[in-house]
Amino acid sequence: MTEQIRDLAHLSHVEVLTPKPDESLHYFREILGMEVAGRSGDSVYLRCFGDYERSSLKLTAADHGGVGHLAYRTVSPEALARRVTALQAAGVEGEWLDGDVGHGAAYGFHDPDGHRIELFWESERYEAPPELRPSLKNQPQRYPGRGVGVRHLDHVNFLAVDPGENRAFLEANLGLRLTEQIMLDDGTEAGVWLASNQKSYDLTYTRDMTRTRGRLHHVAFFCDQREDVLRAADIFLEHGITMESGPHKHAIQQTFFLYTFEPGGNRIEVCAGGYLVFAPDHETVVWTQAERAKGQAWGMQTVASFHIKGTPSVPEEEALLADAGH
Amino acid sequence: MTEQIRDLAHLSHVEVLTPKPDESLHYFREILGMEVAGRSGDSVYLRCFGDYERSSLKLTAADHGGVGHLAYRTVSPEALARRVTALQAAGVEGEWLDGDVGHGAAYGFHDPDGHRIELFWESERYEAPPELRPSLKNQPQRYPGRGVGVRHLDHVNFLAVDPGENRAFLEANLGLRLTEQIMLDDGTEAGVWLASNQKSYDLTYTRDMTRTRGRLHHVAFFCDQREDVLRAADIFLEHGITMESGPHKHAIQQTFFLYTFEPGGNRIEVCAGGYLVFAPDHETVVWTQAERAKGQAWGMQTVASFHIKGTPSVPEEEALLADAGH
Amino acid sequence: MTEQIRDLAHLSHVEVLTPKPDESLHYFREILGMEVAGRSGDSVYLRCFGDYERSSLKLTAADHGGVGHLAYRTVSPEALARRVTALQAAGVEGEWLDGDVGHGAAYGFHDPDGHRIELFWESERYEAPPELRPSLKNQPQRYPGRGVGVRHLDHVNFLAVDPGENRAFLEANLGLRLTEQIMLDDGTEAGVWLASNQKSYDLTYTRDMTRTRGRLHHVAFFCDQREDVLRAADIFLEHGITMESGPHKHAIQQTFFLYTFEPGGNRIEVCAGGYLVFAPDHETVVWTQAERAKGQAWGMQTVASFHIKGTPSVPEEEALLADAGH
Amino acid sequence: MTEQIRDLAHLSHVEVLTPKPDESLHYFREILGMEVAGRSGDSVYLRCFGDYERSSLKLTAADHGGVGHLAYRTVSPEALARRVTALQAAGVEGEWLDGDVGHGAAYGFHDPDGHRIELFWESERYEAPPELRPSLKNQPQRYPGRGVGVRHLDHVNFLAVDPGENRAFLEANLGLRLTEQIMLDDGTEAGVWLASNQKSYDLTYTRDMTRTRGRLHHVAFFCDQREDVLRAADIFLEHGITMESGPHKHAIQQTFFLYTFEPGGNRIEVCAGGYLVFAPDHETVVWTQAERAKGQAWGMQTVASFHIKGTPSVPEEEALLADAGH
Repeated sequence: MTEQIRDLAHLSHVEVLTPKPDESLHYFREILGMEVAGRSGDSVYLRCFGDYERSSLKLTAADHGGVGHLAYRTVSPEALARRVTALQAAGVEGEWLDGDVGHGAAYGFHDPDGHRIELFWESERYEAPPELRPSLKNQPQRYPGRGVGVRHLDHVNFLAVDPGENRAFLEANLGLRLTEQIMLDDGTEAGVWLASNQKSYDLTYTRDMTRTRGRLHHVAFFCDQREDVLRAADIFLEHGITMESGPHKHAIQQTFFLYTFEPGGNRIEVCAGGYLVFAPDHETVVWTQAERAKGQAWGMQTVASFHIKGTPSVPEEEALLADAGH
Repeated sequence: MTEQIRDLAHLSHVEVLTPKPDESLHYFREILGMEVAGRSGDSVYLRCFGDYERSSLKLTAADHGGVGHLAYRTVSPEALARRVTALQAAGVEGEWLDGDVGHGAAYGFHDPDGHRIELFWESERYEAPPELRPSLKNQPQRYPGRGVGVRHLDHVNFLAVDPGENRAFLEANLGLRLTEQIMLDDGTEAGVWLASNQKSYDLTYTRDMTRTRGRLHHVAFFCDQREDVLRAADIFLEHGITMESGPHKHAIQQTFFLYTFEPGGNRIEVCAGGYLVFAPDHETVVWTQAERAKGQAWGMQTVASFHIKGTPSVPEEEALLADAGH
Repeated sequence: MTEQIRDLAHLSHVEVLTPKPDESLHYFREILGMEVAGRSGDSVYLRCFGDYERSSLKLTAADHGGVGHLAYRTVSPEALARRVTALQAAGVEGEWLDGDVGHGAAYGFHDPDGHRIELFWESERYEAPPELRPSLKNQPQRYPGRGVGVRHLDHVNFLAVDPGENRAFLEANLGLRLTEQIMLDDGTEAGVWLASNQKSYDLTYTRDMTRTRGRLHHVAFFCDQREDVLRAADIFLEHGITMESGPHKHAIQQTFFLYTFEPGGNRIEVCAGGYLVFAPDHETVVWTQAERAKGQAWGMQTVASFHIKGTPSVPEEEALLADAGH
Repeated sequence: MTEQIRDLAHLSHVEVLTPKPDESLHYFREILGMEVAGRSGDSVYLRCFGDYERSSLKLTAADHGGVGHLAYRTVSPEALARRVTALQAAGVEGEWLDGDVGHGAAYGFHDPDGHRIELFWESERYEAPPELRPSLKNQPQRYPGRGVGVRHLDHVNFLAVDPGENRAFLEANLGLRLTEQIMLDDGTEAGVWLASNQKSYDLTYTRDMTRTRGRLHHVAFFCDQREDVLRAADIFLEHGITMESGPHKHAIQQTFFLYTFEPGGNRIEVCAGGYLVFAPDHETVVWTQAERAKGQAWGMQTVASFHIKGTPSVPEEEALLADAGH
C-alpha cells in the first residue's frame, strides 16, 4: 500500500449565489440560526456557531442560484504547495488569488465539470465579539438559541455530467478518498461520495440528468442531534419554507436528512448523524442499481425533483419532471 | 366505590411575582420562548405556544418573588357552581371576582397554608394574530423557534408547613386526586402530588423547611421532548441563568427536569416526559423515607438548596443551608 | 352547555387476528418489546411496560388478519351501567360476556360498520413477576431494553364505509368526543378522530375505499420520545419488517408516526408526540379537502397503499392500487 | 510550522481486566449490547456494532480490575515502522508481539506511568456472520436492538501520577495532539486530552490522587444520540448497575456522559456528542483551576469518588474519600 495523500484538512466554505439576497440572508440567519461575519461587495459572509474559522458561507447576490466556488483548507502551507504543484503537473489551469474575507492567498481551479474549487492555508481564527462570546471556552461562539442552530458546514453536493471523471480528478490531485459510490449496471458512476478527512464525506457528485455542467445539487449544514432536524422541520413549516424530502435516513452514508429550498432557489440540507471513517484502508462501499432502487434507508421513495432539479435552474428540468409524472 | 368528583378541567395559569419585572420578562419571553398576550397594571400576561387559552402566566411586579395566585378552569359552569357550593359548605372563606385578562368571573379562596387559588369557567379562546398564526390549524399558535420553546404550563409546586393538610383540603373540596406521595417513617406527609385530570400531577406540595406559610417552590413548563430540555440547558448556560439541578429524571412522577432561577428569584422548571394516569381507580404510589434517600431516578443526589429555598426568600433559609454544609 | 358524558376511562385493549401467530408473536414480543401476559385457547395476551392492566393486546390465530374486538374500560361500575342502559335505549343489540383473561364481565356490541366493541369495569391490576419487577415503583413493569420498547396501546384506526355514521353513534352512546375531522367538499366525513379522555384520540375511523365493512386500518403503540420512533425504524429495518410510511409527523393530531406491517398482514403504527386536550369545550378541528391535499405536516405525500389497504385484505384493494398507479 | 506526525489512525481496542468475568461479560453483551467476537485463554473479545475491525474490547479474567493494554492502529505499515523507530531512538523499552485475535504483529511498550500501549497495522476486517449481517452495507454489523447499543469504543482515560509527563511522551513519540488541558495555578497539568485523529480525544490522563501508577479511570463507548444515553440510564437502572454520575454534559470536550461501574469494578462511560477538530492548527484549550471549580457544563458538581476511584482499587482511596466527606 502506498501512503495516502492527506493534504486537505477540511471543507472550509462555500459561496452560494442567490437572486434574492435579502430573503436568502433571512433564511440563513433567522431560520438556520447563522451569524453574519462580514460583508464585502455583493456578498455577506455567514458562520455557524461551531466554525473555528471566520465564515463557512459566502452568500453572493447574482441573477441566478448556484455555487460560486467551494474552498478547502490544507493541513499546512507545505501541503498547499504540494497540491498546487500536483495540479500544475497534471496540466490543470489555475491561478493564485489574494484571498478573501477570513482567509489568505488561495489557489483556484475548476473540476472537470466546471465547478470552481479553491485551496488555501492562511485562515483567520474567529474571535467572538462580546455578544457572541460562548460560556464554554472550547466552543468558538455561543449557541444561538435562534432557529435551527446549525453547528458547521457539512458537505456540498455538485451535479456533474460525469461524476466518475470528477472523482478520479479529485482523488489524483487533491487526495480526496472515495468512501461510497453508486455504480450502475452499465458501469456508470451515478454518484460518488468523497472525503478529505475522517468525516465520511464532504464533497459529493451526482449525475446531472439535464446534462448541464457546473451546477449545484445542495449544500448541507450539520446539527448535533437528529432531534434538531425534527425540530428544524417544524421551524421550516412555520416559516413557509418548502421541504422537498425528509426528515429521513439516507441508505448511503446513513445521514439523517431534511432538504429545503432557500428563497434563492438553492437546495439546502439540514443533517445529523452519519458515521466516521476510522479505517485508514477503508474499502469503498459500492451500491448497485438494484440496491438503490430500494429507496432510502427506511423505505421512503425519493421524490423525482430530487433527481432532477439543481441550481442554476435550466429548462431541461421541466421536461424531465414531466416524464417523471410531475 | 363512590364516583369521583371531576369538576376541574386543568391548571389554567399562575401569577408569579417578581422584584425584577424587566429581567423576568426577558427570561420568559426570550429564553423560554413565551409570547406576551396582554398587559394590565403592573402585570404582563404571557403564553406558551400550546395554550388554547389566552395566557398561562401572569407576571406581576412586586417587592419580592413568590406566587400571587393559581387558577383552575372547571369542566363546565355547573361544575364551577358545585365547587363553590362545596367550599362554602365546608366553611372556606372566599369571594367572587370580576375576572381578569383572558377569563371571566372567578371564585377565589386560600388553601390551609395560605396560597391563593381561583376557579373559573369562562375563558377567552386564543386567536393568534397574523404574525403568530400557526401552519397547522390544530395548534393555537405558531412554534416560536426562539429560546426553549415551552408548550404549556405543566405544574406548580407550593411549599407548605403541612402538605398533608393541604392535600386533604384539595381532595375534599376540589376533587384533586393524590397520585404520588412521600410518607416519612413518623407518618408525616413530606410531599403530595395532586392531579385534576389525566396528567399525573398539576399541583404539588412539599414541606417548607423554614416553616413559613404561603411560599412557592417552583413553577414548571412543559417541553415535548427530553432533547428540548437538554437543549434548554445549553440556552440557559449561554444566558448566564443559574441551573440549580438537572437535567435528570425524577424518581417520583418520572419527570425529566431542569431547575433554574429566573431573575426575580423564583425557581422555574423546564420538564418533559412523565406519564399519564389511565386508571380511574389509580392507587396512590407511596414513597417511604428510605426510598427517597436513594436520590433521583438515576442516582443523582438532590442539592440542599432544593429542599430549602423558596419564594419569597426568608432569613431562615440561610441557617438551614449552613446546616446542610453550604 | 350540557355537561358531557365522561363514562369511558380509556381504550383498554384490542384483539388482533393473525394467520401467522408465531411470526406475529415474535413481532410484538421481540421487535416491539412487549411481554406475554397470558395464553388461552388460540390467543396470546401481550402487554406494554406501561400498562397498569394485565394486557393491552390479545393476539388470536385466525385464517386472516383484522380485529376481533376492542375494549374500553369505564370510569366506574355506575358508568358501565349507564352506557349499557344508553345502548339498550338506543336499540343497539348487545350482550354480557363473562369476561376474559385480565378483566371481568363485559358488554359487547357492534358499531354501525360492524366492528365489535366491548365495555367493562372490573380489571386485574398487573403485578409484575420478580424478573419483570421495575426499579421505580410508579411503573407497572420494568422497561424491557429489548426491541422498540413501547409504553402503551395508543389508538385503533378502523376503516368504515361511512365514518360519520360511526362517529355519531359513538358520540351519542359512549360519549366519545370528536377532536379532529376531515370534511370533504361534498360534506362526506372522510375521517374522524375520537377521544374518551384527555389524549387527543384513541379511536379513529377513516373511509374504506373498498366499501367493505368491519375492517382494520391500523393499531398504534406509543413510545415516549420521537427518538424512540427513529430508533424503531432501524430495528424494523434490521428485522426485515416492511415500513409503509414514516417516520414523519401527521398534520392531523400532530402524531409522529411510523407504519409497519406485522407478519400477519396487519398495519401496526409506532408513534410518539401529539398533544393533550385540556379544553373541556374543545372545538373540533375540521380539515378541508384542499388542506388534506397538502400531504403530511412536513410535506411528505402519503403513499397510495395507506389509503387503500386494510385487514382482512379484500380483492378490491388490488384494483384501487392499480388505479393509483401501483 | 513543522508538519505534524499523523501516523496513528485510531484507538483500536482496550483490554479490561475483571475479577468477575461472567458478570462483566453479561454487562458488556446484554446491557451495552456488544457481541462476542472470539475467545482465547482467559479472554473474551467483544465488539460494537460500528467496529470495522474484529473487536474493540478484550475482556480478561484477573484477580483485580484495571487495564491490560490499549492499542492503536497506525495509518500504514510505514507509519508503524516510523513509530517503532522513534520509540527506540528515544530509548523506550519495547518488543514485538506475534499479534492477537483480530490483528497482526504489534509493538508493545509502556507509558511513563506504566500503562501498556501497543501499536499494530495488520487488522482483520470484520465479516458479519449471517445472523449479524446488517441491512445497510455501509455498516459492519446489524444494529443489535438489545440493551444500550453502543457504536464504537470512544476513548480511554488513564490515571497517572503526572499527566503532563505522559502527555509529553505521547506527543513526542506517537504524535498524539493535545486538544484540551487542565492547568492548575501551580503549573501542574491535572488533566490532558489527547487525540490521534479528528475526534477531539481518544486518550486522556487525569491525576491519580492516590499516587499509584498504571491505573485506569474509565473506558468509554459511544452512542449516536444523547437520547441513547438517557435511555441507557433507564436500562442501567433496571439492571441494578450503579450510576456514579450523569447523564450530564462535560464542560471539557462537551461530551454528554454517563458513568457506571461494571461488575468487575471498572468505571465504564456511555457517551454521545462532543465535537470534531477540523483545524489542523488547533490551539489547545487550557482550563484554569478556577474554571474547573465551576462544575460540569450545566452546573452539576462532580462527585468525590470520580476524582479518587480507579482500578485496580487501592487502599489509599478510602482515606481520600473519607477526607472528601464520604
